[in-house]
Amino acid sequence: MKVKTEDGVESMQAVWMEGEKVKMIDQRFLPHELRYFTAKDYVEIKKAIREMMVRGAPAIGVTAAYGMAQAMVQDVEIERAAETIKSARPTAHDLFYAVDHMMGKDEPVKAAEEYAESVIQKCRSIGENGAELIENGNSVLTHCNAGALATVDYGTALAPMRVAFRHGKDIFVYADETRPRLQGARLTAWELFNEDIPHSVIVDNAAGHYMQRGEVDMVIVGTDRIVANGDIANKIGTYEKALVARENDIPFYVAAPVTTFDESTERGVEIPIEERDDEEVRSINEEVICPDGSDVRNPAFDVTPAEFISGYITEKGVFTTSEVKDMF
Amino acid sequence: MKVKTEDGVESMQAVWMEGEKVKMIDQRFLPHELRYFTAKDYVEIKKAIREMMVRGAPAIGVTAAYGMAQAMVQDVEIERAAETIKSARPTAHDLFYAVDHMMGKDEPVKAAEEYAESVIQKCRSIGENGAELIENGNSVLTHCNAGALATVDYGTALAPMRVAFRHGKDIFVYADETRPRLQGARLTAWELFNEDIPHSVIVDNAAGHYMQRGEVDMVIVGTDRIVANGDIANKIGTYEKALVARENDIPFYVAAPVTTFDESTERGVEIPIEERDDEEVRSINEEVICPDGSDVRNPAFDVTPAEFISGYITEKGVFTTSEVKDMF
Repeated sequence: MKVKTEDGVESMQAVWMEGEKVKMIDQRFLPHELRYFTAKDYVEIKKAIREMMVRGAPAIGVTAAYGMAQAMVQDVEIERAAETIKSARPTAHDLFYAVDHMMGKDEPVKAAEEYAESVIQKCRSIGENGAELIENGNSVLTHCNAGALATVDYGTALAPMRVAFRHGKDIFVYADETRPRLQGARLTAWELFNEDIPHSVIVDNAAGHYMQRGEVDMVIVGTDRIVANGDIANKIGTYEKALVARENDIPFYVAAPVTTFDESTERGVEIPIEERDDEEVRSINEEVICPDGSDVRNPAFDVTPAEFISGYITEKGVFTTSEVKDMF
Repeated sequence: MKVKTEDGVESMQAVWMEGEKVKMIDQRFLPHELRYFTAKDYVEIKKAIREMMVRGAPAIGVTAAYGMAQAMVQDVEIERAAETIKSARPTAHDLFYAVDHMMGKDEPVKAAEEYAESVIQKCRSIGENGAELIENGNSVLTHCNAGALATVDYGTALAPMRVAFRHGKDIFVYADETRPRLQGARLTAWELFNEDIPHSVIVDNAAGHYMQRGEVDMVIVGTDRIVANGDIANKIGTYEKALVARENDIPFYVAAPVTTFDESTERGVEIPIEERDDEEVRSINEEVICPDGSDVRNPAFDVTPAEFISGYITEKGVFTTSEVKDMF
């Protein structure tokens, strides 16, 4: 991704390796400060993942792979490093996969770089496949952050916009701020700003208005899981945006690598919806916004039915729901 | 409305008159502090309205009526008081109406109290008519604050919930936080807390999820304007909630006094949508949430088409869209 630094515009990954050191953009300080964190050992890798300096399943996986390579080069007890890194986020599938993938590799740094490169390549392909859907002059709405920060580079939902813009297409992006954690305002807008892609940040409530008024040509979102009937789970609010898009005949695309496909789950309604910490809703910027006596609920995800999805943008091409079902 | 104070639960209006003084709850400090403001003359009435200590068209109208009564009792130059109060919010219809209504009244305090009482009575009737729609055990979703704070007492959208609960019905309310200004989290939740009505505050993005999962039995919102074909303008985000309600066969009601009907406008699409200050989106609790280089858009309202509206709850009864059209 492009990042505006004091030295000009640099090409950068969300996380990378320099010698024995694992470096990353510390996302906790975005969008206001570009700070880096350097993990000197596997304990600091765990800290970086646990404290959400790095977030997004693919970026966490790559951080873990680099961390394992670092541990192997440093000749520490590898089982211990593996357990430590895995314990950073005990429910993260990519984290576990990446750690296990690195076990027993002869050239660990090379193996970790290959792992990172495969993640980036998939996103680049998603970008190229998705960019063909975006026409010159289009406005695209996105929700949350499925960008380079979450996937090391390119992103999933943001990849088609990035590639279309780099290919010279004149595009405009509406970025939903995405309460409660505001990843749209904080991270997606930061990525768009750094790429010089024209955009506006809007409250989540305003997405429907702009779709209704004909100011949005398509919606592209990421996803955490695509189940066997084509339903998806994604950041809370995605369902509403998909419904408004269908009502207004606006194509609604989901961008994700094929590893996101989960054939063990039949229908979206079976996906358990994680409820996150109340505090994310109750407080913004450390100020409580509702009465202390009020109850708060905070579902992290919702389910968007396959019938609202115009296409699945993957590294292998853009598929319809029936094509996705056939792939299972 | 009921308000929990240090002395126990008190019955209170959002604004009232005590001798020559106009008193009000200073809404800028809610939900954390119950502070009152006392306007000692028409200059302070203007200040209270302009600085949004009091908000909501009906409550502003009543504040203006009390301010005019105060000016008449204080024997100040009445034309000057009228112009000063009107200048507090130069586009507020109820403000102008209330000031003009008070001109030339022989018993000004009595006239202002009658004006206030008529506003409260309408809301009480909206509450009684709407409460019949709410069944024991129902969960109701609302957006923004159309409560007692905005209407002196009872509210419009909140009135049916208040009355149903006081009549002993077991109800539950989902309060959308309502970005950008968070009136749902700050004010609606505060009113519900004070009435002891069970409720949860949710981010606007979560409303669709709870409707999809069958946890919402009806939606009730207020409105700023009902036009000739039954379309309404209300707080940004209302359109999305109405659409999700229809998709999930959930009744969607609009509560408002009949003075909200605007027969001079044919269709909702003709309603100009005010864009408010960028800062409301860009900053929360005085901390900027997106890059300084990002553009921001902030539409204050959206339009909900009549086809999504199950009924209009007014002081004269609950009407369908075709009945509303006939009334014009």
